[in-house]
Amino acid sequence: MKISRALISVWDKTGLSELVGFLHKHDIEIIATGGTQKTLEKSGIPVTPIETITGLPPIMGGRVKTISPKIFGGILADRDQPSHLEDLEQLNAIPIDLVVVNFYPFVSEAAEKNLEFRKAIEYIDIGGPSMVRAAAKNYHSVVPLCDPKQYPRFMEQFTKNDGRISIEFRQRYARDVFKMTAVYEAAIMAYFSKSDHELLPETLNITATREQQIRYGENPHQKAAFYRNIHDINHWHQFQGKKLSFNNYSDIDSTIRIINEFTEPACVIVKHANPCGFGTGQNVLEAFHRAVATDPVSYFGGIVGFNREVPPDLALALIKPFLECVTAPSFTNEALRIFTKKKNLRVIRFDKDQQNGLVLKSCSGGYLVQERDRDQHELEHLKIVTKRPPSNSELISMRLGWIISKYVKSNSIVLSDYRQVLGVGAGQMSRVDSVKIAVRKSQEAGLSLAGAIIASDAFFPFPDSLEIAAGAGITAVIQPGGSIKDDDVINRADELNMAMVFTGIRHFYH
Amino acid sequence: MKISRALISVWDKTGLSELVGFLHKHDIEIIATGGTQKTLEKSGIPVTPIETITGLPPIMGGRVKTISPKIFGGILADRDQPSHLEDLEQLNAIPIDLVVVNFYPFVSEAAEKNLEFRKAIEYIDIGGPSMVRAAAKNYHSVVPLCDPKQYPRFMEQFTKNDGRISIEFRQRYARDVFKMTAVYEAAIMAYFSKSDHELLPETLNITATREQQIRYGENPHQKAAFYRNIHDINHWHQFQGKKLSFNNYSDIDSTIRIINEFTEPACVIVKHANPCGFGTGQNVLEAFHRAVATDPVSYFGGIVGFNREVPPDLALALIKPFLECVTAPSFTNEALRIFTKKKNLRVIRFDKDQQNGLVLKSCSGGYLVQERDRDQHELEHLKIVTKRPPSNSELISMRLGWIISKYVKSNSIVLSDYRQVLGVGAGQMSRVDSVKIAVRKSQEAGLSLAGAIIASDAFFPFPDSLEIAAGAGITAVIQPGGSIKDDDVINRADELNMAMVFTGIRHFYH
Repeated sequence: MKISRALISVWDKTGLSELVGFLHKHDIEIIATGGTQKTLEKSGIPVTPIETITGLPPIMGGRVKTISPKIFGGILADRDQPSHLEDLEQLNAIPIDLVVVNFYPFVSEAAEKNLEFRKAIEYIDIGGPSMVRAAAKNYHSVVPLCDPKQYPRFMEQFTKNDGRISIEFRQRYARDVFKMTAVYEAAIMAYFSKSDHELLPETLNITATREQQIRYGENPHQKAAFYRNIHDINHWHQFQGKKLSFNNYSDIDSTIRIINEFTEPACVIVKHANPCGFGTGQNVLEAFHRAVATDPVSYFGGIVGFNREVPPDLALALIKPFLECVTAPSFTNEALRIFTKKKNLRVIRFDKDQQNGLVLKSCSGGYLVQERDRDQHELEHLKIVTKRPPSNSELISMRLGWIISKYVKSNSIVLSDYRQVLGVGAGQMSRVDSVKIAVRKSQEAGLSLAGAIIASDAFFPFPDSLEIAAGAGITAVIQPGGSIKDDDVINRADELNMAMVFTGIRHFYH
Repeated sequence: MKISRALISVWDKTGLSELVGFLHKHDIEIIATGGTQKTLEKSGIPVTPIETITGLPPIMGGRVKTISPKIFGGILADRDQPSHLEDLEQLNAIPIDLVVVNFYPFVSEAAEKNLEFRKAIEYIDIGGPSMVRAAAKNYHSVVPLCDPKQYPRFMEQFTKNDGRISIEFRQRYARDVFKMTAVYEAAIMAYFSKSDHELLPETLNITATREQQIRYGENPHQKAAFYRNIHDINHWHQFQGKKLSFNNYSDIDSTIRIINEFTEPACVIVKHANPCGFGTGQNVLEAFHRAVATDPVSYFGGIVGFNREVPPDLALALIKPFLECVTAPSFTNEALRIFTKKKNLRVIRFDKDQQNGLVLKSCSGGYLVQERDRDQHELEHLKIVTKRPPSNSELISMRLGWIISKYVKSNSIVLSDYRQVLGVGAGQMSRVDSVKIAVRKSQEAGLSLAGAIIASDAFFPFPDSLEIAAGAGITAVIQPGGSIKDDDVINRADELNMAMVFTGIRHFYH
């Protein structure tokens, strides 16, 4: 197929004059809509206004200007079917071989600017998508272009093949059209669904653009990428260091969520998706030292996060051990300068306000979708179930341990005092195993459990865990409650003179 | 706004005669396209054929039949703008107040039937989406309906409000249009991308439909649902039992993947996303007993999976303990009858051929997307690194342990012999901790580690893990290798007379 006639109707004029100059040079007739035509007239290229074809000026403020059987017949006629060509003649219309369209910018002008409905709908393009969809349907006879980024490649192909575009390329351009319309329609749908309080709608439509190709996935033999959801406002900013790995992304995400739960200066260290160190302090440096103390061995190679600006003294402490990433809401300039001494260290700034939304998990056949685990409101409604109520200090420790337990993979056990985590028991299939691990870890780290608390993400099915905890010096327990053996567990806590509270809320996390 | 005129152009004629009978009864004029018109004529309802408005019969085999300024002017005229109404008069056109459209069934007729391109494109509807999008844009003046499911509600609203549809409903119908087009365009894009070997394309477009509302997510306070990806072929079939919980879905998914890696009769028991028992045997009953033996405490409440049909004797064994789910590729009728005695037990059949595809993980701002961890090809290319090569029995044990280690959350350690798992160390932030846990677990289960093997999902950073393993009787090691301390680790293995192989492939899994 040879291109003799092009229809051009674009909002985004990027690259337009180069493309049209090129087409004109190759004797291709240009038909254009109003705005496009005006832009082109300035460059002196002869243009046929679309109304000379449709026989109708734009009406209804431009809502109807391209919708005409002559235009759509010209685009949709299958050149291989004589009847189509006869119909075209009967219509007194001419074939259109190239359709260059881009749409009214609904996302940038309506959705992102939060225009009210009556104004926003003016950015819903009707003619543009209709024309370029028609061209894409008929890609066997027509070349559809819908993005200025395609122009250079198109011209290159045109030149290389003596004015022809191969069927493979036309098919790819057709696919690009449907990709574009799919994104466009999803964006309009999302705008219309803004006021829609249906959390888990009947149809889930996700559009995401590849923001970063990652060297590999969880392992070197798995290809991977990070995709930005076009409706998500959270951004990542990396100051320095190696490119983020797949596991870095995931661990930083956990880090940010943990650290945002605390108002006092706090530090968390994440390894393999679990916190392996956590501390609070008068300042972030103190918090960091406490977080290291939780597990002075495992923190090596970890992801470290703070909920405060990172000052120079902390930066100096952070460049000493081997760490993968440091993340915080901000960094002083001097701190950033210090980090440059360790050029591989990834330094990431995160937005304080994290959009919560839904969490997706791939599962055979589709996706498990759920709300994120919410804030710790239950801490205001604790139920004391033992004879001895918790002391103030125990209550503060419970709060700290309970929040961290939410981010430790289930079955999760966290031992803590009022300012740091003392031991973590993660990811076990039996709860008492998590208790044994947490106790052993704190002993190996040389931390005393006297007066410490134990937090459990779900109920204790038996009293055995409490016996182990009490044996190690732990005096208080925070857990959801809800086991059929709650009475046995409470009785044992009383016998051990422990204070125990029920949260009524479970925090499984896998 | 009062509805006086409707334009109807539908492929799916479901509910059509009821709707049109209703409209006719309320003195609404009906304009219809060819097929719709023919269906309606049979019912004796007077219909204006669309060509009497457009002044043009359908041409190009129906490709152009509704695209006309008179139709689109009638739909797009903003009734609040006098200039729009003047334009309409000038055009000698009439306002259209209700647009009822559904599309050529691209998914069911083209995509699912795998039609070749030239035939498939005939199912790309151009006029339908254009008309109903126009109606949706102008929802302030027009009611757009795009799905027969909407008709009863529409008629109810119409009757209740004396022939009017509220602006809230019209806006919701507009949203439904863009939902419909977003799904339609995504399906066409997916069809065009079939031959696209780009694993991680620039734009990710996911469309999934809610297949099952789940009582709650990982925890009772999180709302959740299972969504079917419209392009995924994997299906779930539940014979009996309570509805699947969120964690059931996720654990069954793991179970199926593990069990599909083995050709010999095998059984796995999953708890909290980790295998806590695994065994092979002459038959599935024997395999089940071995899987229970791995951890006779934790398997309580687990998800049990088999890679063979479940026979009656196994069903009898499965109804004795408390289990959440049983899953297998098939069940004998007698086995299914036996399960009915335990009516809460979930019994699930899975397809043997699991589509692999990409795995998504929610991450602040969007999604981490990666290939699934692949099959264990590396087992054919093991590198023996110790002086003593593994015995045949050790090699078989290594294969078993290595495959299971891929599904244990990192850092993962699996101890096994040639027919069952003897201990699992899961989800630790330090590798040596996983070793300690696995050894302790096997001892608690009363299992001997003499002559057993240790499998590690990633390299050992230090020789300490091997010392612990050898101390417990383990004689052989399988691991990826790749630590800067590999030499130290190999030397220590030689000193301990262990056989060690490197796989060259890591299997982190979080």
